[in-house]
Amino acid sequence: MLKVLLDCFGGDHSPEANVEGALAALDRLSDISLILTGDEAALKRCLDGRRYDAGRLEIVHAPEVIGCDEKPIDAVRLKKDSSMMKAIRLLRDDEGIGAMVSTGSTGALVAAALTRIGRIRGVIRPAFCPILPTMSGGLVGICDSGANVEVSPEMLRQFGIMASVYMEGVYGVSQPRVSLLNVGKEAEKGDEIHQQAHILLSNTPELNFVGNMESRDLLGGSYDVVVADGFSGNVLVKTTEGTALQLLGKLKKDIYSRTLYKLGALLMKKMFADEKEFMNYQNYGGSVLLGLEKTVVKGHGSAKAVSVAKCIEQAYRMETSSIAARTEEIIMKYEHYDY
Amino acid sequence: MLKVLLDCFGGDHSPEANVEGALAALDRLSDISLILTGDEAALKRCLDGRRYDAGRLEIVHAPEVIGCDEKPIDAVRLKKDSSMMKAIRLLRDDEGIGAMVSTGSTGALVAAALTRIGRIRGVIRPAFCPILPTMSGGLVGICDSGANVEVSPEMLRQFGIMASVYMEGVYGVSQPRVSLLNVGKEAEKGDEIHQQAHILLSNTPELNFVGNMESRDLLGGSYDVVVADGFSGNVLVKTTEGTALQLLGKLKKDIYSRTLYKLGALLMKKMFADEKEFMNYQNYGGSVLLGLEKTVVKGHGSAKAVSVAKCIEQAYRMETSSIAARTEEIIMKYEHYDY
Repeated sequence: MLKVLLDCFGGDHSPEANVEGALAALDRLSDISLILTGDEAALKRCLDGRRYDAGRLEIVHAPEVIGCDEKPIDAVRLKKDSSMMKAIRLLRDDEGIGAMVSTGSTGALVAAALTRIGRIRGVIRPAFCPILPTMSGGLVGICDSGANVEVSPEMLRQFGIMASVYMEGVYGVSQPRVSLLNVGKEAEKGDEIHQQAHILLSNTPELNFVGNMESRDLLGGSYDVVVADGFSGNVLVKTTEGTALQLLGKLKKDIYSRTLYKLGALLMKKMFADEKEFMNYQNYGGSVLLGLEKTVVKGHGSAKAVSVAKCIEQAYRMETSSIAARTEEIIMKYEHYDY
Repeated sequence: MLKVLLDCFGGDHSPEANVEGALAALDRLSDISLILTGDEAALKRCLDGRRYDAGRLEIVHAPEVIGCDEKPIDAVRLKKDSSMMKAIRLLRDDEGIGAMVSTGSTGALVAAALTRIGRIRGVIRPAFCPILPTMSGGLVGICDSGANVEVSPEMLRQFGIMASVYMEGVYGVSQPRVSLLNVGKEAEKGDEIHQQAHILLSNTPELNFVGNMESRDLLGGSYDVVVADGFSGNVLVKTTEGTALQLLGKLKKDIYSRTLYKLGALLMKKMFADEKEFMNYQNYGGSVLLGLEKTVVKGHGSAKAVSVAKCIEQAYRMETSSIAARTEEIIMKYEHYDY
């Protein structure tokens, strides 16, 4: 039985969506048990009248909540009784627990994970790896997307290694095509950090490095992993999500502007629903913070039940694969490089 | 009569699209005259049989072309007889010429402009400012989008000043809302350069600075100017264009997958055509390289005639506004800041 912690507060739809997602995950995965952290009375209200396997669900009372606008370091230090920090401490201290999921403050989660949870040997800094769907029906992982706004070339190589092992182990992508986000295809593009990273990635035979990627090619299906510094990786992921949402919104508005269009859209109802599902990031789970000894999954702040359940599934898959060992094995080969 | 140079080679659809765009601009703007640079015989073939005001169109022979994959510095130094370098030299030397348009190599154009054309007094580095349409029917300028992959806080403030004056002078936006591209809304987000830039921008009363922008909000219509380092600004613009193109492509493919959808799409034919036009970057001209004493407009490498004509119109509007003087006036107020 795999134990996964679920921080039930701090998201836009907490705690209802988190509890709902927990029950869905319990249904779907028979060899998982969940520990929910948060205000016990509130969580019990959410569970009231619901049918579930009570032997696989436990509540750990944590009365405080970390808000999105709190300073991460202060939150980690001062809010010891928050749902997030209780989960982090349990993750650190309980050898029987391997993973946690949170939809709370990203900054606080990163600060807590970095200071409380050990790293895989050799890893300089853990990094986020969110997943986006591509037009060819596949998935692409972007690492880092915001945990590290400042990076070194060696860190970028490690992001490539961690994400490649992740896409292979968790999503079954064989020999993931790894690219480096840059302002042009040519190796000498970008600042010195990206130029150096290009050289390091090219000289890592464990990776299937295919060169620089220009951001307009992200969704084309030619890449399985995009290595990025946390700043531009964040811009890449959020711009993609934002543009997709804005365009869908515009389509909808324009459809309602004329009866003829409404009629046409009626015939295409299923297609539009499919497009919406395709672009709905709730369907793709959260971002795993790669490089830690234990699994930490950050769900979207706006995660609904379906997304929370997906995050728990990601945590489960992380724990049932041998990602940490494989990551360490490759990273330790290059550990003597200076950083 | 305003004289504008047009580099007619180096684009994907050169020289035909460039010549076609030139003729369209001559038709539209009665007080403009154009100087086309490039292989004279080829240009004459394009003009053959066309009706135009020959008194406002001149050809300057330049037999060489700079390719997209050439090293910028080498191209600038060695290809003196190229269509781009001839135009740059004329722009520098002829006092009667105020502007040039090129659809050729971005790297070569930046290198040539930086080394051959003077800057506005006080400007540390010129920067590109492409324009995107927003969902509320307005436009947003992103500065920088790739001319400077490494920046200082003071450079970012200058990008804000240059782009704000540009959006006001050329697009008539009153008191442009200026934002700083960052990984979160809060002032303390991002690396130190962005944190410092946030402080500088906040302390520039000539700017209507409204704070950090997250990239998912770019198209929402809440901002007129986005200040960015050239690396993440490049990612922002190209991801937006790429996502829009990919989604439109997916819609089209999905429509063709079922007869019912094709029927529905038939009723919505005009709407889809409008969406396509809305997202077609050819309609929004090119990127002006702000901060130079003379106007340099970079058209898309894939610019067609409509886009080339728009670029010429941008050059025209730059020259008929008093952007350079206003930019200098504001920038010189902060010139004592160390950089």
